[in-house]
Amino acid sequence: MSTDALLTRLNGILGDGLAVDPDVTAAYRRDVMPLAPFGEPLAVAFPTDTAQVQEVVRACAEHGVPIVPRGAGSGLSGAANAIDGCVVLVTTRMNAILEIDPDNRLAVVEPGVVNLDLRGAVEKHGLFYPPDPSSYDWCTIGGNLSTNAGGLCCVKYGVTTDSVLGLHVVLADGELLKTGRRTVKGVAGYDLTKLFIGSEGTLGVITQATLALRPLPQAPGTMVAAFGSTEAAGVAVTRIVREGIVPSLMEIMDATSIEAVERHLKTELGAGKGCAALLICQSDSGGEAARRELGMIEQVCTDAGAEMAFTTFDPAEGQALLTARRAVLTALEVYGAWLTDDVCVPRTRIAELIAGCERISGEVGLRIAVVGHAGDGNMHPTIVYDPTSEDEFARARQAFDDILAVGLSLGGTVTGEHGIGKIKRDWLAREIGPIGLRTHRAIKAALDPGNLFNPGSMFH
Amino acid sequence: MSTDALLTRLNGILGDGLAVDPDVTAAYRRDVMPLAPFGEPLAVAFPTDTAQVQEVVRACAEHGVPIVPRGAGSGLSGAANAIDGCVVLVTTRMNAILEIDPDNRLAVVEPGVVNLDLRGAVEKHGLFYPPDPSSYDWCTIGGNLSTNAGGLCCVKYGVTTDSVLGLHVVLADGELLKTGRRTVKGVAGYDLTKLFIGSEGTLGVITQATLALRPLPQAPGTMVAAFGSTEAAGVAVTRIVREGIVPSLMEIMDATSIEAVERHLKTELGAGKGCAALLICQSDSGGEAARRELGMIEQVCTDAGAEMAFTTFDPAEGQALLTARRAVLTALEVYGAWLTDDVCVPRTRIAELIAGCERISGEVGLRIAVVGHAGDGNMHPTIVYDPTSEDEFARARQAFDDILAVGLSLGGTVTGEHGIGKIKRDWLAREIGPIGLRTHRAIKAALDPGNLFNPGSMFH
Repeated sequence: MSTDALLTRLNGILGDGLAVDPDVTAAYRRDVMPLAPFGEPLAVAFPTDTAQVQEVVRACAEHGVPIVPRGAGSGLSGAANAIDGCVVLVTTRMNAILEIDPDNRLAVVEPGVVNLDLRGAVEKHGLFYPPDPSSYDWCTIGGNLSTNAGGLCCVKYGVTTDSVLGLHVVLADGELLKTGRRTVKGVAGYDLTKLFIGSEGTLGVITQATLALRPLPQAPGTMVAAFGSTEAAGVAVTRIVREGIVPSLMEIMDATSIEAVERHLKTELGAGKGCAALLICQSDSGGEAARRELGMIEQVCTDAGAEMAFTTFDPAEGQALLTARRAVLTALEVYGAWLTDDVCVPRTRIAELIAGCERISGEVGLRIAVVGHAGDGNMHPTIVYDPTSEDEFARARQAFDDILAVGLSLGGTVTGEHGIGKIKRDWLAREIGPIGLRTHRAIKAALDPGNLFNPGSMFH
Repeated sequence: MSTDALLTRLNGILGDGLAVDPDVTAAYRRDVMPLAPFGEPLAVAFPTDTAQVQEVVRACAEHGVPIVPRGAGSGLSGAANAIDGCVVLVTTRMNAILEIDPDNRLAVVEPGVVNLDLRGAVEKHGLFYPPDPSSYDWCTIGGNLSTNAGGLCCVKYGVTTDSVLGLHVVLADGELLKTGRRTVKGVAGYDLTKLFIGSEGTLGVITQATLALRPLPQAPGTMVAAFGSTEAAGVAVTRIVREGIVPSLMEIMDATSIEAVERHLKTELGAGKGCAALLICQSDSGGEAARRELGMIEQVCTDAGAEMAFTTFDPAEGQALLTARRAVLTALEVYGAWLTDDVCVPRTRIAELIAGCERISGEVGLRIAVVGHAGDGNMHPTIVYDPTSEDEFARARQAFDDILAVGLSLGGTVTGEHGIGKIKRDWLAREIGPIGLRTHRAIKAALDPGNLFNPGSMFH
């Protein structure tokens, strides 16, 4: 009865922007993470502007119906997964790029803008929006903000929070909070902008963002090196960091990843027989600086025992290597379903993490490919399993957790860029401890006293 | 009576780390901002470790006596100013550099470490801690964290929050919260680290920080250009940004600043007669890259109408120019006391801000020198007045406020790096509005329900 009243009210607000047909809403129940639980939404809302978001929030608050905010659904933590009886609030119809200001190097966007669309739009002005999660051709800026997404650029350009100047956020009572500013610097009050970034939809709904842009970098040069052991590759990473080099990209692929990609793309990555790890580095510093950086990196790799190392300034060749790197998860699908972790460890501990994954792979009897952002220690050990086998699924889940434990034991974090969502809640508690958890709950209760937004996600 | 009991307990915790003699405590009543109100502390506490901080916090909480955390007292907002009957908690005796890890480019420090001491210590490892507020030779990292301090480096390297991985914070109940991590990336939970940074001692006492370091940059080259009008200098700044150049420093000095410095240092800056503004830019990219960047900057300045522009790679010459820039406030003291603002405006509006300051200077009949970080629009219009004249002080205060109004009207913020403290509370309310203020109060109440830390600072 109360539910009917809410749906009638939402229909009045949203018109055809409200879906209740289970055939439609089913597509909005979950993101890409197979382990995360999900429920059946009461309805899916597709607001087209901030005013509609405010009205939806007010209506749901009054009816005590929770809201799960969602972008494209490319997430890997279940943060955007529906819970039973909720309203999934999808921001993809709010997809306008409202302003690009080249003189102040900023853009103002709605949350539904696809990452790649923004990149293309600002590139026309000689500008660059760095955050580039693997799903950048379909994920939205709103989702990137909610998860504080990273990507391949982070080693030089940081993560999403480093590129945000201000936000518009609809709060739990429907009021619109404007955080931050349009200036490069500013310390007026608490840094609310960065509090909402990465809060996974638990504190409010982001309806607008002012983003800091950078000058478009030079076309990158690329160095690739093959190592006979992951330890040698780890040593190379440590020495590159120690030498004071900041590449614009530094990715690592282990033997399992290389094999899968070579098979998938029907190409040779030139890693050679017995290659245990491939390191791909780029420099976008241009000219002499790029040559110097990549020359130093190649030398470090050779000194660390690389069996092959070469540098190319041919953009097509560099792009082909990146395409191979980005294809790892897809390539693994030939062996079964995949389950990817995203532990981040100190950069000096990467080889130990890979060794831990090899041990776990043996223990659970499943293939684990390790690929990741070596430049910031953010690794994606990816477990391959047969989705039709309950036993394999259980072992995959075991491996997933075991990898997190190894990451923590190495001084790392359980999530470098994917988030906690509905899959790592127990691990958040383990990582941040009771005082940390209590502080999270206090902030959540202060900003969302009715537990309206994404209840039970991130923490209980 | 209750006060005596508290002092006895504090004495038991701190021993000679407790001061109650008014001759001693007087020095800890206020920071460098002459406008901010200050009171008489009950006592000044100098804890030497986290456990002592926890005990002091517990004792004060039980007695309902507020705590005002403080570093060196170099602040310019009154944030660290005592209120009547408070305990000023000074962190300068917690000044150990606990760890420097070159392989992971991080340092772990106590809050009382002086910024310059940290810079020197990490430089020995070929590393660089960017934030460099003007007071860097005496301000502490704890103060820098509490105010999210900036400096001259920000145009390329960001502000304090961009260099912090994690914190230890003593909360209002004396518990120790550990935020963040030692890894480059990490999104486990809310970004509590960045919430405490810039919170001006209102949410807790920072007792340890894990800081991200960068490779030590190349020795900088320096370009200086003199303009006949501030508009021309503003155009040059806009075009430099538009050209996609990221200098490591871009400072502006107006005619009043130049004149004061030349008189103070008994040197010629080469600005020439009729110079309205001097632009000083550096590039630390090294080699060909630095030559290219500074060549482009010099060309842009010439095209924008600079009457003089030259580039030097002589470190002594570059250092002399920076020394002149850093000497502005001291140089102004020959004319009287100074009162410095720190509005930050979009980079395209700098010339308008300077014009506004010239207008205000005429209106109030006081000298206003404008100097600042042109690269990020963060300007320090500095009003000179006779401290013995109540009338001049009142006019200086009027000018101070009028400049803030101009900053806001240009789409700026009332504080780019100094903070709100006890001097800009009304301006915070004006800048962030009632929803913003309510959100601040909710977070403060959630983390410090007894209003123990720095009550009445930043907002009421």
